[in-house]
Amino acid sequence: MTIMTEIAVLRIGHRPERDQRVTTHVGLTARALGAKGMFLAGDDRGIVESIKDVAGRWGGDFFINDGVRWKRCIQDWKDSGGVVVHLTMYGINLPDVEEELKTKDKLLVVVGAEKVPGDLYAIADYNVAITNQPHSEIAGLAVFLDHLFQGRELSGEFPGAQIRVIPSKQGKFAEGG
Amino acid sequence: MTIMTEIAVLRIGHRPERDQRVTTHVGLTARALGAKGMFLAGDDRGIVESIKDVAGRWGGDFFINDGVRWKRCIQDWKDSGGVVVHLTMYGINLPDVEEELKTKDKLLVVVGAEKVPGDLYAIADYNVAITNQPHSEIAGLAVFLDHLFQGRELSGEFPGAQIRVIPSKQGKFAEGG
Repeated sequence: MTIMTEIAVLRIGHRPERDQRVTTHVGLTARALGAKGMFLAGDDRGIVESIKDVAGRWGGDFFINDGVRWKRCIQDWKDSGGVVVHLTMYGINLPDVEEELKTKDKLLVVVGAEKVPGDLYAIADYNVAITNQPHSEIAGLAVFLDHLFQGRELSGEFPGAQIRVIPSKQGKFAEGG
Repeated sequence: MTIMTEIAVLRIGHRPERDQRVTTHVGLTARALGAKGMFLAGDDRGIVESIKDVAGRWGGDFFINDGVRWKRCIQDWKDSGGVVVHLTMYGINLPDVEEELKTKDKLLVVVGAEKVPGDLYAIADYNVAITNQPHSEIAGLAVFLDHLFQGRELSGEFPGAQIRVIPSKQGKFAEGG
């Protein structure tokens, strides 16, 4: 399986107390569904450690960098030839833009917490909705990655894993760990 | 657009303090991506009210019932001819089972919080993984619904909405509300 587009995630608006679990879900979803890594605007060592811990045991080379400034992160991504996609319920619905996005080599997917800075809408190259309904940035990211990778990421490999699930009709089986 | 399979969600293991936001994301994701409603094992009026509030303003006829007992809910579903799918990273990977699931008329998708009762694996008709990697029940549910509905749910209509987004390349526009 070769996934052509390189995708990283930028999580903004993270509030260390309130958003810890949701941001952790964002990071783990990014990793499991084929993103290369996550930039976290804000400092949160706890999240960085817990995602690194998962990545260490379950394999692959997902990166996570906290403490980034979001505008600088976006500018650096653009300077290196990348395209920036902001996921928002106010954007263009995914089915209307996904074929165009699949032609890009390098995407930074920006997912916000409850409110995002107003200028993000103008700075992003694309504002994309996963339905124009209110739901969850975790769900939005998951559907976005799955569409961009055309479902192939669901069978992705994670080299160097210490632990591996043995898929089963019933029960819980794993090897290693 | 006609979506043939009827899907409802059963959320189990909900802890009112700890899981409020994640369970709310589960419910809103279920609604936005075409499920008929959500059963919540456990009582949480706050979640019920907040999801009903969204459904009231944004349209459609999503139902939410809290206070259900999970085994009874599953048994009732089976008695009415429905099939039960438990989403778990230990299950059969989605690509290996989705064509079979698409032939069913009525699916109950069970999503747990951190730990689920061991007998759920045997009671469910299918244990299905959205990758065999650890990530998020919200992401798992989103990808599952999107695959079962083949992306058509992304353009779903929500009749009776008081507020509607006007999809836009930049900025935030809505009518009504």
